[in-house]
Amino acid sequence: MKFLLIIFSFILFQVAPVIAQLEDSIQLRCIYNEVLERGECYENLRVLCKEVGNRLSGSENAEKAVVWGEALMKRYGFDRVYLQEIMVPKWVRGSIEKLMYKDSMKNFEPAILALGGSVGTNGILQGQVIEVRNFKELEELGKKEIQGKIVFFNRPMNPTLISTFHAYGGCVDQRHAGASEAAKYGAIATITRSMTLRNDRIPHTGSMSYKEGIKKIPAVAISTVGAYNLSEVLKRNPNLSINLELSCKSEIEVKSYNVIAEIIGKVYPEKVMVVGGHLDSWDVGEGAHDDGAGVVQSVEVLRLFKKLSIQPRHTLRCILFMNEENGNRGGKSYARLVKEKGEEHILALESDRGGFSPRGFSVDGTTKQLETIQRFEALFRPYNLHLFNKGYGGVDIGPLKDGKICLIGLVPDSQRYFDFHHASSDIWENVNERELELGAAATASLIYLIDKYGFEQGLKRATFKK
Amino acid sequence: MKFLLIIFSFILFQVAPVIAQLEDSIQLRCIYNEVLERGECYENLRVLCKEVGNRLSGSENAEKAVVWGEALMKRYGFDRVYLQEIMVPKWVRGSIEKLMYKDSMKNFEPAILALGGSVGTNGILQGQVIEVRNFKELEELGKKEIQGKIVFFNRPMNPTLISTFHAYGGCVDQRHAGASEAAKYGAIATITRSMTLRNDRIPHTGSMSYKEGIKKIPAVAISTVGAYNLSEVLKRNPNLSINLELSCKSEIEVKSYNVIAEIIGKVYPEKVMVVGGHLDSWDVGEGAHDDGAGVVQSVEVLRLFKKLSIQPRHTLRCILFMNEENGNRGGKSYARLVKEKGEEHILALESDRGGFSPRGFSVDGTTKQLETIQRFEALFRPYNLHLFNKGYGGVDIGPLKDGKICLIGLVPDSQRYFDFHHASSDIWENVNERELELGAAATASLIYLIDKYGFEQGLKRATFKK
Repeated sequence: MKFLLIIFSFILFQVAPVIAQLEDSIQLRCIYNEVLERGECYENLRVLCKEVGNRLSGSENAEKAVVWGEALMKRYGFDRVYLQEIMVPKWVRGSIEKLMYKDSMKNFEPAILALGGSVGTNGILQGQVIEVRNFKELEELGKKEIQGKIVFFNRPMNPTLISTFHAYGGCVDQRHAGASEAAKYGAIATITRSMTLRNDRIPHTGSMSYKEGIKKIPAVAISTVGAYNLSEVLKRNPNLSINLELSCKSEIEVKSYNVIAEIIGKVYPEKVMVVGGHLDSWDVGEGAHDDGAGVVQSVEVLRLFKKLSIQPRHTLRCILFMNEENGNRGGKSYARLVKEKGEEHILALESDRGGFSPRGFSVDGTTKQLETIQRFEALFRPYNLHLFNKGYGGVDIGPLKDGKICLIGLVPDSQRYFDFHHASSDIWENVNERELELGAAATASLIYLIDKYGFEQGLKRATFKK
Repeated sequence: MKFLLIIFSFILFQVAPVIAQLEDSIQLRCIYNEVLERGECYENLRVLCKEVGNRLSGSENAEKAVVWGEALMKRYGFDRVYLQEIMVPKWVRGSIEKLMYKDSMKNFEPAILALGGSVGTNGILQGQVIEVRNFKELEELGKKEIQGKIVFFNRPMNPTLISTFHAYGGCVDQRHAGASEAAKYGAIATITRSMTLRNDRIPHTGSMSYKEGIKKIPAVAISTVGAYNLSEVLKRNPNLSINLELSCKSEIEVKSYNVIAEIIGKVYPEKVMVVGGHLDSWDVGEGAHDDGAGVVQSVEVLRLFKKLSIQPRHTLRCILFMNEENGNRGGKSYARLVKEKGEEHILALESDRGGFSPRGFSVDGTTKQLETIQRFEALFRPYNLHLFNKGYGGVDIGPLKDGKICLIGLVPDSQRYFDFHHASSDIWENVNERELELGAAATASLIYLIDKYGFEQGLKRATFKK
C-alpha cells in the first residue's frame, strides 16, 4: 500500500507536470500549424486595408470598419457578437495642406501633414521660423524670441535605443504638447519633425492636444528629410519666412462603436479574458500595422479557439476598440462599463505594436501574474519568443487597470514600426504574412495557457521544465 | 598578511569578473552606438546595389564589385587589403526566357527564370507537362510516364516550420537536382516551383547542377502563383502541352577574386579570425539581402574596430567571398590556401541569411567553443539576442572546417528572407537600415569577446552573470 502511495505520489508530482507540458506543447503546435497553414488574418487584413482603407474615428471609413468587423465575426459564428456605442471626436483633414518657403530664389514645398486635432490656418499664415530641440530651449528663448513666429521642433528620435518605442517616447512630447508649449510664448504655429528613425520624405501624423486656456495654433509634421533641409536653410537664413495653409478642423462628436465578440467560458462564463486591438487608424495609408494587424490577430485568436475546438474555461472576448488614436474613448468607455456591470476580468491582452515577428510579451500585473507567465517561457522557445518581462500593456486596455487584472502587450520586433507609423507607407503590402500570423499564434497560445492554468493555480500546477 | 590574501582572492575571484563584465558591456554599448548613430553599412549597401547592381560570378558587374570592395576597404585604411585570385564558372542568362501555354483558347505566359547553370533550349522546346511532388513520385511514374515530357516539380515549402531555412532545406532538392533526376526517366525539361513562402508572381532562381553521365535538360523556376495556375490547368487538361524557350548557356571559366582586408592582431598576428559574406549574387534584383548585407556588415565590423580603436589580439580578416551562389570557388580556394600556408584560424563568422533583425548565432564548433559563446549570452540580452545554439556556419566558411576552427553563422529573423531570395525583389529598398546595423553590431561584439577571452581561457575568465 505504501509502495503504491509512493508510486502514486511519483506520478502526481513527477510525471503529471511532464504530461501536462507535453500536452501543452502539442496544443501550441496545433495553434501554430493552423495559423501558418490555414490562417485567415492576412486576408482579413487585406480586406480591411484595401476595401475599407484608413479609418479615422468619426469618418465614413471608420463606420465601414465597424460594419466589416461585426460581419466578419458573425460569419465566424462566435457565441455573441455585438456593438458597444460610444461618442468619438471627429477631426477632418480637409483638402488644403501646404507649406512653402523660398530659398536662393527657389520655391520649396515639402510634404507635410497636419497633426490630428490641429486647428486650420484660416487662410495663408506667414511667419518666421525658429528651430528648437525641446521645451527647455523654448523657455530659454522666451516670449521675446518666439512671439509671432513658427516654432520648428526638430529633436530626432534617439537611434541608439534598441527599442524604437523608447526612442519614440523620448520625442513625442514635441508632437503631442508642442503647440500649446509654443503658444505660451506667442508662437503662431508649429512644425514638428516626424517621429521616425528613417531618413525619408514621408511625413508622419499623430495626435496632438491643446492645453486649456492657451491659444490654439496650427501644428504640422514635416518628414525627416524635410526637417533636415529646413534646418539647413535656417542656418544660412535665420530670418526665413514661410507660408502655411491648412484647412483641417474639428467637427462635433459623432456616434461610433467598439465591436465585440465572445466565446463563452465553459467553467467561468462570468470571468472575462480580453484580446484586442484598435479598429480606428490615422487618415493616411491604410492603418495596416497600426492597428489593422492587432485587429485581425485578435479576431484570429477566437477563430483559432473555435476551429481547434479549444473550449475556454473563461469567457474569451475579442474587442475591436474605436478611437485609440485621438481620444481612447473606446478603451475608456469599455472600462467604465466593466466597472458598472461589476464584470470580473482575468486578463486583457493588446496587440498594437505592428504585425512584426513576435518576440514575447510585456506584462503589467502582479508579481504572481508575471511569474506565472514567465513559467510558460519554455513552451514558447521553439517559436523564438524570449521576452517575458514586466512592461506596458496597451492604450486601449490601460483603463481596465485595477490592481487585479493582468494587462499584457504583445511585443513584436520594433525596428521597422516607425518606418510606417501614422504615415502613407502603413499599407498592407508592408506587412509580412508569416510575421502577422506568428503574432496571432503567440497570442492565442498565451491565452490558452493562462485560461488553462489561471494565475492562482498557475505557479503551482505548471512547473515547466526550463 | 593572510587577511590581505583573502581580500586579494576576493578581488580576483569575485570583483574581477564583475569589472570585466562591466567593461565588456560598456564596449558593446560603444559598438552599438557607433553603428546606430554613424554606421556606414547601409550607405555602402546602397552603393553596391545601385551603382554595381547584381553581380553573378564571371559577369562584368562581379568584377565591378571586386573593384568596389577593394577600393572601399582601402579607403577605410585597414592594415592590408588584397585580392585572392580564383577561377569561377560563367553562366549567362541570355535574352530569351519564355514559357507559353494555351488554356481555354487563352494564351498564358507566366514569368519564369532559368535556374542558374541550366542549358538553353536551342530553339522552342515543346512538350506535355507532368506534375510531381518529389523524386519518389518521379520514380513511381517511371520512364513510361516521364519520357519526352516536361517535369513540373511543385512541392511547396512547409509553412509550419518556424525557421524558413528548414522549410527551404526540405524543398531545394527539386531545384538543385531535379533536372538530372527527371532526365534519368527521359524528361526533356523541368519547371520548378519557386522556393518562397509567399504567394506572388515573382520567380526565384538559384543554383542547379547536372549529374555526370545524365543528359542535361533545361530547367526553369516558376512563381508560386504561376505554379498554382499551371497545376489547376493540368487538373482540367492533363495533356497540356507547353512551349519553352531559353537562351541561357555556360561559357568558359574566367578569373575573379576574393577581396580581403585585415587588421593585424597585436598579440597573435599569426592567428586569424575571419568575418565575411559573399560578394557575388544571382543575376536578378540587386543581391541586397543575399548577400550584399553580409558583405557590408563584414566590412563594418573592421570599420568599427578601427573607429573605436579596438586593437584585436588576433588578426581580424574580412573576406568578401566570390562565387558562393554557383560553385563556392571562393570559399574552397580560401580554405585550400589556408591549409597550404598552415595558417591558424580561431574562428570564421559568416553573415549570409539576410540583413534582418539579428536573433543570435549558430555555432559549428567544439563543445568548449559553444559553451564559451553561450557564456556571453547575458551581454547580448539588452540587444535582444537570445539564440546561441549549435548549428550551421555558412557556405563560404564551410571548407575551413577542420575540427579546430569555430564556425559561426549570424542568425537573423528568417521570416522574410525567402520573400526576396534570388528574386527581382531582393533590392536595397527591402533592407531596413537598423536591422542591418544591428547585425553588424552583434557580429562585431561577438568577435570582440572571443578575441578578448579566447576559447581556451573563455570559460574560466569570463564568468558572466546570468
